[in-house]
Amino acid sequence: MWSHEVPSAPNIAIVGVTGAVGQEFLRVIDQRNLPFDNLKLLASARSAGKQVEYQGKTYTVEELTEDSFGDVDIALFSAGGSISKKLGPVAAEAGAVVIDNSSAFRMDPNVPLVVPEVNPEAVQGIEVGNGGSGSSGGGIIANPNCSTIIMLVPVTPLHKAARVKRMVVSTYQAASGAGQAAMDELELQSKEVLEGKAPTCNIFPFQYAFNLFSHNSDIGDDGYNTEETKMVKESHKIWNDTSVGITTTCVRVPVMRAHAESINLEFEHPLDEEEAKRILSEAPGVSIIDDRGGKRFPTPLDASHQDDIYVGRIRNDQSRKQVAGHGIDLFVCGDQLRKGAALNAVQIAELLLAGVPAV
Amino acid sequence: MWSHEVPSAPNIAIVGVTGAVGQEFLRVIDQRNLPFDNLKLLASARSAGKQVEYQGKTYTVEELTEDSFGDVDIALFSAGGSISKKLGPVAAEAGAVVIDNSSAFRMDPNVPLVVPEVNPEAVQGIEVGNGGSGSSGGGIIANPNCSTIIMLVPVTPLHKAARVKRMVVSTYQAASGAGQAAMDELELQSKEVLEGKAPTCNIFPFQYAFNLFSHNSDIGDDGYNTEETKMVKESHKIWNDTSVGITTTCVRVPVMRAHAESINLEFEHPLDEEEAKRILSEAPGVSIIDDRGGKRFPTPLDASHQDDIYVGRIRNDQSRKQVAGHGIDLFVCGDQLRKGAALNAVQIAELLLAGVPAV
Repeated sequence: MWSHEVPSAPNIAIVGVTGAVGQEFLRVIDQRNLPFDNLKLLASARSAGKQVEYQGKTYTVEELTEDSFGDVDIALFSAGGSISKKLGPVAAEAGAVVIDNSSAFRMDPNVPLVVPEVNPEAVQGIEVGNGGSGSSGGGIIANPNCSTIIMLVPVTPLHKAARVKRMVVSTYQAASGAGQAAMDELELQSKEVLEGKAPTCNIFPFQYAFNLFSHNSDIGDDGYNTEETKMVKESHKIWNDTSVGITTTCVRVPVMRAHAESINLEFEHPLDEEEAKRILSEAPGVSIIDDRGGKRFPTPLDASHQDDIYVGRIRNDQSRKQVAGHGIDLFVCGDQLRKGAALNAVQIAELLLAGVPAV
Repeated sequence: MWSHEVPSAPNIAIVGVTGAVGQEFLRVIDQRNLPFDNLKLLASARSAGKQVEYQGKTYTVEELTEDSFGDVDIALFSAGGSISKKLGPVAAEAGAVVIDNSSAFRMDPNVPLVVPEVNPEAVQGIEVGNGGSGSSGGGIIANPNCSTIIMLVPVTPLHKAARVKRMVVSTYQAASGAGQAAMDELELQSKEVLEGKAPTCNIFPFQYAFNLFSHNSDIGDDGYNTEETKMVKESHKIWNDTSVGITTTCVRVPVMRAHAESINLEFEHPLDEEEAKRILSEAPGVSIIDDRGGKRFPTPLDASHQDDIYVGRIRNDQSRKQVAGHGIDLFVCGDQLRKGAALNAVQIAELLLAGVPAV
C-alpha cells in the first residue's frame, strides 16, 4: 500500500502533445477515462499557442520550459531523448512522476522500466504526489521501446511457464516508429512512385515506399543496431534476467502504425503449441488470431488502433525434429503508437493511481 | 562428359510467356545472350496470336497444346503447377528438357532440383537433345521455390565451411511471388488507400497496401504453410541432407519484386563474422552490401532487376553469449522474378549446354 493518499484525479501534463505519440496520448486518455483534474498540453515554442479541442473544452498548447511542472502530478513525456534528459529530472524534482517514452532513462538502474502486464511491481517506490509543490511524490519511470513491449506482452507468460532460454526475433516495423514525419513521407513517396516520379527522401536517405530496409538506427561495435540492442537489454532489465539469449533483426517495412514480429522461442522446459495457445488465450493484453483453416492470422491493420497485441501462427518449431530442444514459433502484431507507446504509458499511470500491491 | 553432342543453339520454348516470370525469361535470355536457333513463345488460347517484338524479330504467341514440343530442345515452364503436371511429361517425352518453375515436380525423387551455384552436379543424366524428334535428350529439372533459392545461394558456402545445424528464417516476400495480378492489385490498392477509398481485394481477401500478412498458402497439419514447408523440404533435397533443422516464417510485404529474408544460422563448427564475410565475398551469385558506418544494407530495391543475392547485416549472433553454440545473423535480398525464378532456370539451361563436369 501507498504511504500517502494517491490523488483520484491528478494534474497531468503531456510533453510533446503535437507529435504522433502526443496525439495518441489524448485519444488513449479519453478512451480509458483516465481521471485528471488539470490537463496541461506542452510542446516546443513553435507549437505554443495552438488551440486544441478536447473533451468539450478548448486547451491552449503551452511552451515547454523548466517552469512547466510546478503543479503537475504525472508528466507523460514524448518529445525525444534530449528533451527528456534535460527536463525529465526537472519535472521529477518539482514533484511530478515522469513517464518517459524516450530511451533516455531506460537503462538507468535507478529508473524502473515497466510493462504493466509484465513487471508492474517495478513501479514500487514511485509515488504520485498530490497537486503540486510540497508534494511528496515524483520520480521517473521509463516506457520501454515499442518493439520490446510488443514482444514481451505475449512472450512473458510463455517465459513464466517454461523459461525462454533463447529467442530469435525479426521485426517488421511501421513508419510511426520514426514519427509523424516518417508516416507523411511514406504517404508522399507512395503517391510519387505510383505517378512515376522520383520519391522525396527527407527522413530516410532512400526510397521507403514499396521497399523495406534494416532499421536506420546506428550500428554498434557488435554489428547490432540500436533498436536491436534495446530489445535485448530492455528485455533483460524488465525480466530481471540477463541469462536469456536474444538475437534480433530490426527492419522497417512500408506500413503505417503497427509493428509485426516473427518470434522463435527456445524453452528450458517442454512447452507445446496447445499449451502455448492455452496460456496466451488467458494472457492479459493478448488477443489470438490463429485460424489455420481460414488462413487468418494477425496483420498490422488488425492491430492498428487496438490495445491488444495480436498473436497467431502459434506452432511447434519443426527444426526441433533435427536439433534437440523445445521450441515454439509465433507471429505477433501490435500498434506502435498505442501499446508500443501511449497506451503502455497511460497504463503505468493507472497502475500508480490504483496503488500497486506490495511485492 | 556428355554421351552426345550438346547443341550450341538449341530450340527453346517459353511456356507461359505472358506471365511475370515468362516476361522475365525473355529479358534474361536476351541479357545473357543465351544462344537459340528457334524460339517458341507459348501461352493459353487467350493470349495466342499476340505479337511480341524481341531481338529485332516479331514473334507470334502460339497456343500451348500437347503437340507444342516436337522440335523443342529446352522448354522453360512457368504457367502454374497444373499445366506443368499435365504437359511437362509430354514435353519431356517429345525429347525436350523441361526446366519447370512450378512446384509440381520439385519433390519427385526422380527429378533434380537445382540451384546452379549450389548443386550443379544434380543435372547429371539429363541431356539436351538435338533439334526435335528422334532426339536422345529430354527430361525434367525443377527450379526451386524463390525463397529457397534466395536463401541457399548465400547460406550454402557457409554451410560448406562450418555445417549449418539449425536455421531460423523469417521472410519479407514481394507481390511478384503471387504473379503479375498481385503486383497490379498492390499498385491499385495503394492508389485507392491513398485516395481514401476502400481497396479492391481480388487476389488476396484483405488489404495488402500498407499492410503485410502471413503467406497465404495453405496450412498443413504441423501449422506451417506450404511456402514454409517448401523452404525446408527443398533445402533438404538440394543439400541432400535432412539432418539440418530449419524453421521458417513466410510473410508477404507490400514490395513489388524482390524478397528479403532474415536468417539466423547455428553452426556445427565455429564460424565468426569475419570468416563469414570472407567466404561470402568469394561466393558465386552473392554481392555484399554491409556498410555499418554508412548504415547501408541490402534492400529489395537494390536487388530488383539484379542477378545477385545481396547480403548484409553479417554479424555474430549475440545470443551465443548466453546459450552455447556458433551463430551468425544475415539479412539478404534477391529478385524474386530473376534469381528466384527466370534467371535460375536459364542458368540451369546454360549448365546443360556447357556440359556439367562428371561428379
